[in-house]
Amino acid sequence: MATVPMKLVTLVAESVLADRLVIELGRLGASGWTITEARGDGSRGVRTGPLTGENIRLEAVVDAAVAERLLETLHRDYFPHFALVAWVSDVQVVRGEKYR
Amino acid sequence: MATVPMKLVTLVAESVLADRLVIELGRLGASGWTITEARGDGSRGVRTGPLTGENIRLEAVVDAAVAERLLETLHRDYFPHFALVAWVSDVQVVRGEKYR
Amino acid sequence: MATVPMKLVTLVAESVLADRLVIELGRLGASGWTITEARGDGSRGVRTGPLTGENIRLEAVVDAAVAERLLETLHRDYFPHFALVAWVSDVQVVRGEKYR
Repeated sequence: MATVPMKLVTLVAESVLADRLVIELGRLGASGWTITEARGDGSRGVRTGPLTGENIRLEAVVDAAVAERLLETLHRDYFPHFALVAWVSDVQVVRGEKYR
Repeated sequence: MATVPMKLVTLVAESVLADRLVIELGRLGASGWTITEARGDGSRGVRTGPLTGENIRLEAVVDAAVAERLLETLHRDYFPHFALVAWVSDVQVVRGEKYR
Repeated sequence: MATVPMKLVTLVAESVLADRLVIELGRLGASGWTITEARGDGSRGVRTGPLTGENIRLEAVVDAAVAERLLETLHRDYFPHFALVAWVSDVQVVRGEKYR
């Protein structure tokens, strides 16, 4: 089965950021997203870090250009102000046109 | 630690498809699966898309042959009829025999 | 945007192991983690396998050395005794220092 390479971007953030991040994703060109409720602990090794408690785990399959724009936006507008972690991985999909 | 390359297949679908997809996974050779409740929005950039609302996020670590059969089955029997997205990524596991 | 390669370790285990695994992650050098509630079925193709029912899905972005130590620990102390699956994938992050 022919597959198309895409990027999976996963964000973990405070639940209060969910709506804002979804709007951001759509504005940057993502055509869909999935949210699961999560709990966790933020970074920097402290148990009482900024991501302690109720979080959302937001993921979107996007093309490389959208992933790049999203990381730039997070770097500029979110990481300095919000408890938020993000990672990107390579995935394969069958119908690449569904994600554009 | 020696690891074995496997495929992680992730499906996001309407919750009503959960049982059917789990049976399909087993039939195609997956030996386990994990489901989390999710919410989301389908593709094509519309807020009222087909995956709006309650979804499941179903994932399974399988070998490459099972992943291939699963994508073929989804392409033939599911994508034309159901709101469903799927992606595949490369993962490493310690005990490859557990997934066969 | 410059990114840094990291490892994403995902564990699926009985819910009762959550606290213990989180402590293990911290001890081995992970600086954060995310838990989602999950349900699933264990390996070996049996419906009544050891991971049937309520599980947790625990994930952490860590550097390669922490991932290696974690897999060794799971192999030695957990896999022989507990229903637990684990997989590792390659991810990219913007701020690598956040995960150390």
